Amino acid sequence: MKVNLEVKMERKKNRQISCRDLDITGGFWQEKQRLFRAVTLNAVYDRFEETGRFEALNCSWKEGMPDKPHIFWDSDVAKWIEGAAYFLLKQRDDELEARVDELISRMERQQWEDGYLNSYFTTVEPEERFRRRTDHELYCAGHLIEAAIAYAQATGRKKLLAMMEKYVALIDRVFRQEHSAAFDTPGHEEIELALYRLYEYTGKESYCRLAEYFVDTRGTSSRDETYDFADQEHMQSHLPVRRQKTAEGHSVRALYLYCAMADQARISGEEEMEQVCRTLFENITRKRMYITGGVGSTHRGESFTFDYDLPEYTAYNETCASIALAMFCRRMWLLEADGRYADCAERAIYNTVLSGVSLSGDSFFYENPIAADPARNAFNESRAEGLREHLPILSRVKVFGCSCCPPNLLRFVGSIADYMYSVSGNTIYAHCYMDAEGELETDAGKVRLKQETAYPFDGRIRITTETDCACTIAVRIPAWSEGWKLTVNGEKVETVPQKGYLPVHREWKSGDYLELELDMKIRFWESNPRVTDTCGRIAVTRGPLVFCAEGIDNEDLLLRDVRLDPEQSGTIRMKPFEGTVLPVLELAGTVRKQEDDLYVKPGAGRKSVSLKLIPYFAWANRSVTQMNTWFLEG
Amino acid sequence: MKVNLEVKMERKKNRQISCRDLDITGGFWQEKQRLFRAVTLNAVYDRFEETGRFEALNCSWKEGMPDKPHIFWDSDVAKWIEGAAYFLLKQRDDELEARVDELISRMERQQWEDGYLNSYFTTVEPEERFRRRTDHELYCAGHLIEAAIAYAQATGRKKLLAMMEKYVALIDRVFRQEHSAAFDTPGHEEIELALYRLYEYTGKESYCRLAEYFVDTRGTSSRDETYDFADQEHMQSHLPVRRQKTAEGHSVRALYLYCAMADQARISGEEEMEQVCRTLFENITRKRMYITGGVGSTHRGESFTFDYDLPEYTAYNETCASIALAMFCRRMWLLEADGRYADCAERAIYNTVLSGVSLSGDSFFYENPIAADPARNAFNESRAEGLREHLPILSRVKVFGCSCCPPNLLRFVGSIADYMYSVSGNTIYAHCYMDAEGELETDAGKVRLKQETAYPFDGRIRITTETDCACTIAVRIPAWSEGWKLTVNGEKVETVPQKGYLPVHREWKSGDYLELELDMKIRFWESNPRVTDTCGRIAVTRGPLVFCAEGIDNEDLLLRDVRLDPEQSGTIRMKPFEGTVLPVLELAGTVRKQEDDLYVKPGAGRKSVSLKLIPYFAWANRSVTQMNTWFLEG
Repeated sequence: MKVNLEVKMERKKNRQISCRDLDITGGFWQEKQRLFRAVTLNAVYDRFEETGRFEALNCSWKEGMPDKPHIFWDSDVAKWIEGAAYFLLKQRDDELEARVDELISRMERQQWEDGYLNSYFTTVEPEERFRRRTDHELYCAGHLIEAAIAYAQATGRKKLLAMMEKYVALIDRVFRQEHSAAFDTPGHEEIELALYRLYEYTGKESYCRLAEYFVDTRGTSSRDETYDFADQEHMQSHLPVRRQKTAEGHSVRALYLYCAMADQARISGEEEMEQVCRTLFENITRKRMYITGGVGSTHRGESFTFDYDLPEYTAYNETCASIALAMFCRRMWLLEADGRYADCAERAIYNTVLSGVSLSGDSFFYENPIAADPARNAFNESRAEGLREHLPILSRVKVFGCSCCPPNLLRFVGSIADYMYSVSGNTIYAHCYMDAEGELETDAGKVRLKQETAYPFDGRIRITTETDCACTIAVRIPAWSEGWKLTVNGEKVETVPQKGYLPVHREWKSGDYLELELDMKIRFWESNPRVTDTCGRIAVTRGPLVFCAEGIDNEDLLLRDVRLDPEQSGTIRMKPFEGTVLPVLELAGTVRKQEDDLYVKPGAGRKSVSLKLIPYFAWANRSVTQMNTWFLEG
Repeated sequence: MKVNLEVKMERKKNRQISCRDLDITGGFWQEKQRLFRAVTLNAVYDRFEETGRFEALNCSWKEGMPDKPHIFWDSDVAKWIEGAAYFLLKQRDDELEARVDELISRMERQQWEDGYLNSYFTTVEPEERFRRRTDHELYCAGHLIEAAIAYAQATGRKKLLAMMEKYVALIDRVFRQEHSAAFDTPGHEEIELALYRLYEYTGKESYCRLAEYFVDTRGTSSRDETYDFADQEHMQSHLPVRRQKTAEGHSVRALYLYCAMADQARISGEEEMEQVCRTLFENITRKRMYITGGVGSTHRGESFTFDYDLPEYTAYNETCASIALAMFCRRMWLLEADGRYADCAERAIYNTVLSGVSLSGDSFFYENPIAADPARNAFNESRAEGLREHLPILSRVKVFGCSCCPPNLLRFVGSIADYMYSVSGNTIYAHCYMDAEGELETDAGKVRLKQETAYPFDGRIRITTETDCACTIAVRIPAWSEGWKLTVNGEKVETVPQKGYLPVHREWKSGDYLELELDMKIRFWESNPRVTDTCGRIAVTRGPLVFCAEGIDNEDLLLRDVRLDPEQSGTIRMKPFEGTVLPVLELAGTVRKQEDDLYVKPGAGRKSVSLKLIPYFAWANRSVTQMNTWFLEG
């Protein structure tokens, strides 16, 4: 069967297909969403309730009382509401909505006449509103805007949305028109992308203008202080955004900014901004990203550092940073149909993002190191406080003082179908594969698609059209897939990938089905030798999953010393694992015969061993043991 | 020729042959001592003069004046005087002696009626004397005792010695008799070993008792505070010394304590204490020591950490700690004729100790990392202060705020011949090889020995007896020497090593000569795989020298990625190098073909390269470039 290879990959009009239009119907993500609805949603709520985050919305705290409100608590509440909204979108729930409405009512009561809305400043330092750039004020506003939109879309209830539009009008006046705030751009980006979202939801130009104003002003204002003037990079204020070529500073802030920049490039059609986004994406993915899609390698400023600086045991890799990286990738594929973006999004999603939450759904990692040595942590904890280094914890916990990651995971998993499709003209791009169905609007009309897959554990994806439509379905071939098979209604299709997508154009009839089979062999990856810590080592992946080895599965093995031959194919078995079923790999390797001396003659001999590996995201769910991702090669 | 293989290695009566009895007559150490006499002695003096360390001895500082005296400045002055004394021992010098005498006079004027002598407390906080354990008071006293002995031995002038004996009498009364100080043992050990030295020099028992008191009381007193009660390990006060099995806390403090413990074991003959010393030596050398003899792997508390924790780029490896390790080894070989101690001493001396000073003799490293990445330092320095990590500097400097290492190097190099011989009964042990001669007292009478060698660059050592004497000369076979040749008067000697020493007993006649040839092949060493950072890597040595590669000699090579085949023999050339001549090694290796991607398929291919290596101690003498000690194997 021949298909048209000359399908033009259209640009600019690329449009995201939202999770509103898609229902997860099975597979990996249905299991995850059910867990999140049953456990995570309530677990995060309960921890926030216990820690006073909801009480703070009443603005009744006084000096001397416990649970002093914190500058970023509004954002925690907002992300929880946004997460709840995605679950309500699929299944309304009176009790849950009553909880959300109660929180919104508390906020309504505290909103100022002029629209101002921030529980910390209102309660603790009202005279300081709009005066402290570093204090997350507009970051909170941004998350509340996103929550308001999601809640309105899920339930039709627009009280919070109206409150936020009133607040945004104030922000617009103070910042963009009067310049009467003490600073010009927020210290923690987020409101920019939220304003673009608000613009796209409401169609009101002023929101677009305000977003543009914040993006374009960054790095140009002498009034924009940071925690330390010497480090404007921390808040991406070291240069006007169009002159930024490398990812710098606080990784979540950076990526939220880049999201807004990509939104701006798409909405405005500005080529220069698009190119800047591409340059930043390249810098991240070619020089500053872990194989797990983790970014921001140091706890010092939770930030990007310098090219090829990717230490293993101290890798910071904030869960939120990988969520933000996926968000940026999704915006980039709306700008440009290039499989690199979805490759990167999946790298982040299936590894560092999911590592951020326990398989039980109620415990979280803020940091996601790629190797763990319990002896180092134990020694560190035994020391006096002033002598300790900062090390990632090795067991997930229920809540953090700075608990941004848990509700961010909630909203992310709740809206995961956002990562499935985009449409450009009459071309449907299938980016990330999930078991889901829904209706997609194309220039050639609406198409109902059903996708069935056991991805990411299996490489077979079946997409069935449930509507007649003459359109192109462009399926992504991930870079890790060395080969693929593509059939339509069982017949092989001859087509070649264009920048990572295989376009199949035809007059689809209801019931036609496209079957794609990706190459799910175990693969090995050498680290770029410029990476000090992993130079000379190899990592193991299968599909989008990075695998790691834990001590608990490999007793008596010094994981660091395991040498793997990358020519082997290994074995893969699906195994019960802490309430779910996961692929466990078994590979042949060697370790050095144990000697006690620190320094010995080479050639002491190695013995054969078998190494068990599990998906990286599943590490630290059973006990605190050594964990390793990069192995010796040979 | 047959010699008696049954020579009994005697114990306990082992006696050090001092640098007083030996003259360095050529070779490596003569060059170094000449440099130190011509440059280092004055350079350290000038920096101390400029920074107010000598002025502080006048005790005339008042609040508001510059150069406020510091708690450890007396120890800096003391070590400079001690260093000067070793040079005066070999060549008197009126001008230099006048300088020393002037400093002693300043101290004499400040000494209290009751003997108290400390410029910091006398000037700044007289009411706090003997009240602050953490403030280096007795540490300063210890160094002044050592200086006083060395100066008396060199010049016969005993003013400082008398002052120190008076001060020690006060310390004995306050600490041992009255317990009227606010603490029981010093926060920074040093006085203990100094008191043993004073005992051995004067023969006065009370000094031995006081030393014993300090050693035995450590770890038993509830009055002994530390900087933080949670970390008594920092000052080795977590346990009574006889129960300490692992090297803990501040590495210099620990090793000065172990020196005193070894002295105590030798002087008292206590087996338990000797065994404790052996256990600590084992823990250090088998689990906590760099291949360069560096110890104390972290800047946090300048301390030992946990077994196999030997990071490369952040290795602290204080110069003083390796000096202290050599000092401990020298005391251990007096307890027990076992070549491991001299092996370890040489490892420290020829690598980390010498790395502490520039080849020009006027600049110093406090920290001695075993790998350097200028990009990491540059990034770090570009950051705001609060976001910086502690990293070793990559160029030596003239003086430090805490400038203990430069004068410690001065006294160490000045007295290097202390490391040559010890005598037990009628057995002379030759530990470290140097071009030197002198007279050794044995139970069989005095023996004049002349040692000629180009060690450490050449493995041939010739020892000529210049006296008739029936005694045993036991020459050390370093563990790195896989073979050796031993002849006496040109005839091969059949003897087997006993714990690292080849004993040759005969009726030596004046003019007899023993020739030893050690195996100076290039050798490779695998790291114990438990060492996270160097697991899977190999290091290169020749003789006692560890070699490293610097970017300046290997342009365009990513040193970290160089893979070496340990089967090769390599080439060695003596080359002019910054005013001296050093061996430069050339080895064949491979590097991966450069690719830009972070993660690539294995098997991209490697290309052959030639790697130039220089002695580790000579690194950072030309420019700031990458430096690497551990290479990939294969």
